[in-house]
Amino acid sequence: MRLRNKPWAKDKIEQHPQYIVANPEMYRGKWHEVFGNEQPLHIEVGTGKGQFVTEMAKANPGINYIGIELYDSVIVAALDRLIEADLPNLRLLNVNAADLEKYFAKNDVDRVYLNFSDPWPKVRHEKRRLTYKDFLKLYEDILVDKGEIHFKTDNQGLFEYSLMSFSEYGLLLKYVSLDFHKSDYQGNIMTEYEEKFSEKGNRIYRCEVKYQN
Amino acid sequence: MRLRNKPWAKDKIEQHPQYIVANPEMYRGKWHEVFGNEQPLHIEVGTGKGQFVTEMAKANPGINYIGIELYDSVIVAALDRLIEADLPNLRLLNVNAADLEKYFAKNDVDRVYLNFSDPWPKVRHEKRRLTYKDFLKLYEDILVDKGEIHFKTDNQGLFEYSLMSFSEYGLLLKYVSLDFHKSDYQGNIMTEYEEKFSEKGNRIYRCEVKYQN
Repeated sequence: MRLRNKPWAKDKIEQHPQYIVANPEMYRGKWHEVFGNEQPLHIEVGTGKGQFVTEMAKANPGINYIGIELYDSVIVAALDRLIEADLPNLRLLNVNAADLEKYFAKNDVDRVYLNFSDPWPKVRHEKRRLTYKDFLKLYEDILVDKGEIHFKTDNQGLFEYSLMSFSEYGLLLKYVSLDFHKSDYQGNIMTEYEEKFSEKGNRIYRCEVKYQN
Repeated sequence: MRLRNKPWAKDKIEQHPQYIVANPEMYRGKWHEVFGNEQPLHIEVGTGKGQFVTEMAKANPGINYIGIELYDSVIVAALDRLIEADLPNLRLLNVNAADLEKYFAKNDVDRVYLNFSDPWPKVRHEKRRLTYKDFLKLYEDILVDKGEIHFKTDNQGLFEYSLMSFSEYGLLLKYVSLDFHKSDYQGNIMTEYEEKFSEKGNRIYRCEVKYQN
């Protein structure tokens, strides 16, 4: 994603602590207090401009969602969506995915979504891929037992890598589609990127994997 | 594959026991006697007209190969190839893959190849797919520990199914390509079917999986 410098972004984020949680480390192990209920919590790591997580939150009011995005200049677009939609079951975090365990305790999260993550194609950047084993360990440390990761991408190399990384980690592949938009899956909610690249004819790959314990 | 009735096939097979092993159950646990050496043994289950296994045997004289094919009318084409090539490290078996354990003992086989296996797309035919769990158990029972299956197909549905079946069985996915002919893999040997369908622009999918014990 192209990053534009938006010097006002940080101010805008700070002005909306009801949407972009200001001190997320305070809620580690007690996110139900933020949402005021005991609903399951699904997080999207790398939420970008927020279309996916916002539409998911609208479509599934019985689930709480948190969209996590590192870049100020990107998360403000997700913030605009959330201000407009004003959904009680959605929050945003402007933090680094590598620090997830600061903000979430074991069993806080019921599902992790990864959508069109940066492929980091160079071998020397493998550790930055959100499906690298260290990230799989991070997700395991905050998910419930038998928790799931739902992953989609149009990047063939990242998908191949991720299937191998999931297998190596011992995750169970419970669903896979190698041409998701031509599959019989119902109710797909698209990201901004997915709309744009599937229109160009790119295949979308998708899988669901499950921790074995 | 279209099957033509070839009433003379059975006779021809019986006339060439040096190529199509006549009583394979006799060699269970002692295939090295057939080949006269202790080289690794790789088998192809569903060998069709035999191009793949013949070319592999030519390219890899230090490995023994057995091509297994149920249909008389198909295996005679593989037999013609083998008569012409007269390779010391290749034999054929005209038997049903479901009976593999009658012909091979544990540790007899170092690798299993599955190429463009019948997809059996109907759910009620799942048990006939060569990557169904019962077949994975059969291969495990004749392979060495940490033995491998190398699988390629142009059938997207069969490949998706197989990735899930391998994962469910606990196999490690050590290699996967979702567009194999555009990958940087060197030295691919094609089946007849692969040549034909890749020319039409079909994607070829390929993976290597490994038993964990």
